[in-house]
Formats: sequence, structure tokens, C-alpha cells
Amino acid sequence: MSNALEQQIAFIIEIDKLKQVLRQTLLTDSSRRENSAEHSWHIALMAVILQEYAPPEVDILHAIKLLLIHDLVEIDAGDTFCYDDRGNLDKAEREIKAAERLFGLLPPVQGQQLRQLWDEYEAQETIDSRYAKALDCLQPVLHNQQTQGGTWKLHGVTRDRIMKRISAVKEGAPRLWPFVLQLLDDCEKAGYFRV
Amino acid sequence: MSNALEQQIAFIIEIDKLKQVLRQTLLTDSSRRENSAEHSWHIALMAVILQEYAPPEVDILHAIKLLLIHDLVEIDAGDTFCYDDRGNLDKAEREIKAAERLFGLLPPVQGQQLRQLWDEYEAQETIDSRYAKALDCLQPVLHNQQTQGGTWKLHGVTRDRIMKRISAVKEGAPRLWPFVLQLLDDCEKAGYFRV
Repeated sequence: MSNALEQQIAFIIEIDKLKQVLRQTLLTDSSRRENSAEHSWHIALMAVILQEYAPPEVDILHAIKLLLIHDLVEIDAGDTFCYDDRGNLDKAEREIKAAERLFGLLPPVQGQQLRQLWDEYEAQETIDSRYAKALDCLQPVLHNQQTQGGTWKLHGVTRDRIMKRISAVKEGAPRLWPFVLQLLDDCEKAGYFRV
Repeated sequence: MSNALEQQIAFIIEIDKLKQVLRQTLLTDSSRRENSAEHSWHIALMAVILQEYAPPEVDILHAIKLLLIHDLVEIDAGDTFCYDDRGNLDKAEREIKAAERLFGLLPPVQGQQLRQLWDEYEAQETIDSRYAKALDCLQPVLHNQQTQGGTWKLHGVTRDRIMKRISAVKEGAPRLWPFVLQLLDDCEKAGYFRV
């Protein structure tokens, strides 16, 4: 086996660990917490299903690649809950270290390409990365709605904070924004979060 | 919210159930069985990582779409173990019924598009579907190697049956075939399956 393929297979085996990284989000039937690998699958498929609401310039393959890899760093850095202020203080530092190790398992050129994808997602400067992030933020809202407040209730999250977080949808998939606002209004009426 | 978006969101919520469909395959640390959603993520990312070994005509976005949706029918039909002869007798029938219900949740045109993708994967007549299937078959081999025989040992699977199953790699990603043969030889020497 070539050295490159050996490195690629080692990477493929290593990333199996993402299936063990638990997010705060519950599955829609509240039976357990979601892991970051199945979450990544869900939002990658959402990118396909909701493509008609994406800005027309979005390169859907590129957006899917961003979604498939964006959480890999959690293998080392863990999932940092978006409403955890303390955890978010050193999140960037932990994740950069993780990116160096993980993408460093690959052949150098390919490792750099994947690292660039991850950097692009983090920087949120491209239209593709913004569409990707919109889906990453929208999916837990659907889960929280399905679980009668889910992690919003569990952690006492307020509407202000949800709005700040979910504004990524306005940035990345503005055509979905009216739906999100309506969804949040419905959730508020149902008492799924603190006002 | 438009009727189309309503249907698309209902579909997105429904497919969360794929995270609860357990495959026979174990995670690489043997801690638990893998589910079909995280499996789909893993092989979609493998399609990116191993792209250089795919036949040059492969449309990688198309192959990824096939991988993201190919297991959805298991939400209704369950995962049928590839070495379960009895379960495979009525697999097609159960899965077609599932495809009708699931893709039927979407707006008609989109539902038909996804159904066509699933049909394409099942028919194994296109180069994209064969590349996709090669990865779907290769990934559990890696897991079985990492778990010292894993489900091969558990179910007493023989080399002949593994070879028949894994020949999809020869069809869909011939450049990976020498690696797979070497991997199986190594697993045989280590006593990971019955000869």
C-alpha cells in the first residue's frame, strides 16, 4: 500500500471517533443526545434538501464538504455548547490544535486542503460557509422544537441568546429566515424557552 | 411557510430516525454498534478523502448524494445484515415500500429526484453508484479489522462470503482493490474470520 493511502486509511479510522462526541442536542424523540457524526450527516443532507433556498451562487458540493468536516476537531477538543460562555473562551485554541493533529494525519497536500476547508468554515467569510453554518444552526432549533424546548429548557436559554445564535440563518440562507422567525414565535408561545 | 418548505422540514425531522437504526458493524473501539446515520456520514467523507482512487469519470457530488440517502429506507425497513440470507429475501420489497413513504413526504418533484437517486444506487449500473457502493462495502471491512474480526467473528462469516461482498470495491474503485486484498490477507493471518 502506498504511503499516501496508508495515511488516508489511518485518517478514516481515526475519524470514527466523532461518533462518540456527544452534543447537547437531543434526538427528536428525546431518547438520547445526538453525536457529532450523525449531526454532520443530517445537515449535509439538509444542504441538498434545502438547496432551493440557498443563495444561487452557493457551490453545493463545497458546502457539503464544509459540513462533513466542520466538526472533526471535536474529536480532540470536544463539543463546546454554543451557550457555554466559559467553554467558548478557549474553544478556538483547542480546536486549532486539534485541526493540526487530525489533518496532519493525511498526506500533506490533502491535509492542507481539508485544513483550508475547516478554516473557511470557521472564518465565515464565504457564501458557501455561511450557507453551511445556517444549516448547522437551524437543525438544533428543529430538534429543540420537537423536544418541547429540549436543551433550551435544560439550560434556561433565553430568546435573546437564541436569536443571536440563529441569526446565522439570516446571513447564510435569508430565504429561510421568515420560517425561522415563525418557528421561534411558535416555540415562544408554547413556552419552550425563557423570554 | 410555503407548503413545499413545510414538507421539506417534515422530511428533515423524519429522517432523524435513521440515527436509531443500528447496523451490525461495531465502532472501531468495539464500544457499541454503529447507526446508519453516522455510517452514512463516514462513507460520504470517505468519498472525498479517497476521490483520487475513484474512476476519473465519477461525479463526486452525485456519489455523495447517493451515499447520504442510500440508507434512508432503513427507517422503515431496518438494516438488513449483508450476510443474513433470510432477511435479504424480502429486503427489496420492504425497502421499496419505505422509499415510497419517505420520499413521498417531500414535494413531488423533489421526492421523485431523491427516489431516482435511491433507485440508481440500488441498480448499481452507473459509475457513481458503483463508487458509492465500494465505499459502503469497504468501511465495515476497516471496522472489522480494527475490532479483531468484529461482526465476521460474531456471525462466523467465511472468507468466500467476504470476498463476494467486497468485490464491490473491485467494481467501483478498482484502484483500491490491491489494498483490500492485502487487508483481507492480513485479517486472515490474524484469524479474524473463518477460512
